[in-house]
Amino acid sequence: MPPKPTLSVAIVGVGLVGSELISQLLAIQAPNPFRLVSLTSSRYTLFAADGLGVNAGSWASALSASSATPNLPVLAEQLAKLEAAVLVDNTSSQDVAELYPEFLKRGVHVVTPNKKAFSANQQLYDAILRASRETGARWLNESTVGAGLPVVQTLKDLVATGDKVKKIEGVFSGTMSYIFNNFSTANPGGPAFSSVVRVAREKGYTEPHPADDLNGADVARKLAILARSIPSLQNALPEGYTSVQTRSLVPQALGSVSSGAEFVDRLPEFDVEFEKLREEARAEGSVLRFVGVVDVENGIVKADLEKYPTTHPFATSLGGSDNIVMFHTERYSPRPLIVQGAGAGAAVTAMGVMSDLLKLVL
Amino acid sequence: MPPKPTLSVAIVGVGLVGSELISQLLAIQAPNPFRLVSLTSSRYTLFAADGLGVNAGSWASALSASSATPNLPVLAEQLAKLEAAVLVDNTSSQDVAELYPEFLKRGVHVVTPNKKAFSANQQLYDAILRASRETGARWLNESTVGAGLPVVQTLKDLVATGDKVKKIEGVFSGTMSYIFNNFSTANPGGPAFSSVVRVAREKGYTEPHPADDLNGADVARKLAILARSIPSLQNALPEGYTSVQTRSLVPQALGSVSSGAEFVDRLPEFDVEFEKLREEARAEGSVLRFVGVVDVENGIVKADLEKYPTTHPFATSLGGSDNIVMFHTERYSPRPLIVQGAGAGAAVTAMGVMSDLLKLVL
Repeated sequence: MPPKPTLSVAIVGVGLVGSELISQLLAIQAPNPFRLVSLTSSRYTLFAADGLGVNAGSWASALSASSATPNLPVLAEQLAKLEAAVLVDNTSSQDVAELYPEFLKRGVHVVTPNKKAFSANQQLYDAILRASRETGARWLNESTVGAGLPVVQTLKDLVATGDKVKKIEGVFSGTMSYIFNNFSTANPGGPAFSSVVRVAREKGYTEPHPADDLNGADVARKLAILARSIPSLQNALPEGYTSVQTRSLVPQALGSVSSGAEFVDRLPEFDVEFEKLREEARAEGSVLRFVGVVDVENGIVKADLEKYPTTHPFATSLGGSDNIVMFHTERYSPRPLIVQGAGAGAAVTAMGVMSDLLKLVL
Repeated sequence: MPPKPTLSVAIVGVGLVGSELISQLLAIQAPNPFRLVSLTSSRYTLFAADGLGVNAGSWASALSASSATPNLPVLAEQLAKLEAAVLVDNTSSQDVAELYPEFLKRGVHVVTPNKKAFSANQQLYDAILRASRETGARWLNESTVGAGLPVVQTLKDLVATGDKVKKIEGVFSGTMSYIFNNFSTANPGGPAFSSVVRVAREKGYTEPHPADDLNGADVARKLAILARSIPSLQNALPEGYTSVQTRSLVPQALGSVSSGAEFVDRLPEFDVEFEKLREEARAEGSVLRFVGVVDVENGIVKADLEKYPTTHPFATSLGGSDNIVMFHTERYSPRPLIVQGAGAGAAVTAMGVMSDLLKLVL
């Protein structure tokens, strides 16, 4: 067994997830299989083929002292010259995502929690697959779904080992999980929808504008990523996440409200509607959950508000802002394989990124 | 990215799991990263450095037509000459397990669902770690715990990315799961313990001799494997699984009954004792579950019969012969990371083995 070459790591995006990842990366004990060769923020960039020589206390000031400005096409060329290199994209930028094929074509791996590339149109996705196939460079995206939870790899393993996935069903948004775990329980009554959303926003569980969670797009993107990992659905979503049947919970009248604060202030006008849905569910002995479904047998991919009996794991087992994912397969039948836990947050997202990086060196 | 060499695979043990693995391996579509170079049963062996050239319909007859008898030290030498090779041990043999260091020392990876090597005494475990470190050959054992469920890799990822594991708690035996899911529920009354065991045996859910499940050793072995993956407990179990605090459910008076049938016939003598435990639990609003606990903070590793409230996931969410594992960590706190699903069976066990093989080539 010849020793594997040290993997050169270029990190783009040094916000919450990026900073946490840098901590995890620099904390690895010798012999460290990684060498940090580049950091890029929205304003600055650093590159040194032999390693930046920074530590947990110095990287941020070194980066902001740089005189170089970000240039990802140049970075791709720089990384291509190294023996083994990986781009880690911690942004949520569509522009960065669209450059993945350029890195992969040059033999540079891509690891990312950024959902954009894999949930956009088929052209970009196909370009990623093609570039990866050409050079053998890999793209790994465990933390795009469920953050550090083993969801993407589990699905890949099921598929790669010849299991037949019949249906994937889950609560894929920590925000939606929190909102409905609090809004709709087995008990009668409960808080108004708007007040749950307001509290969630105050706790930082929603995006600054809650409509960015309530529109279901985040769930639809995750479903697109999972669906495309299943051979029969690889081309089923030509426009990516916008091809997913998605129920938006944003009231039509509030669709054009651009301020998050105003949105929350006006949401009580629609409490009666949500209350009606909650009561309908309760009358059937059910609770409401905003779920994602990939129904392979019927070719349906949808993000929707559904009712589940109060004895169902989505009602009994969920709490906080947990994600839960059930894989119904030929082997895991009649009882599914289930993964559950926190599906958002910088530490667990960085952990998912880090576990992908470890796959490249172990 | 230079293309990875084809991985030569030597399979020892061609029973239920081995046969299923061979099917999964031969079903991989071109370009197949694996080359099947050796098969070994308890009586025969085949080796061909260029590949055996067998298919799903021919391997069994080719093997039984072989004139060569098993010789694992010779196999280790044969594999050592190949560019990249892996031993897959599908037996449950202690003798095979004790040879892992010989393979690893020669740069041959080891992949196995066999718990014996990792749950035996510290000397063998340390020899495995040492040999692997020397040559870079890897040992992967995902399916030793929870079969195809992502349990071992999830724990490794938590540790490798710097999370602090506080406690692992779970139902690790499909047999024990089935028995207690049926024996102890939220409802009053229920079948006698001996009758549940009898049905489990008839359905093939227990070993031929149910004492081999009820003695808790299988759970203790799995706990030893998990505990040793946690840095602070790596040396905590000098004698391996026998160092785990284990409650045996085999009545002392039946300890020397060597026939499984006689054991089941005499078990009703002890129904009153189990009934008493069940009623004690119910009086507290709890159910009985045979669980494994790795309490890292207190350095306790135990397999025991415990009580859980009827609202706990071990009571509400378990069914059939499911395994469930909860990881309580610094990051996954206060709510744990949970993995649940079938934890036994040839197809899901082979899937775990196969997913380990894929880690070596991707």
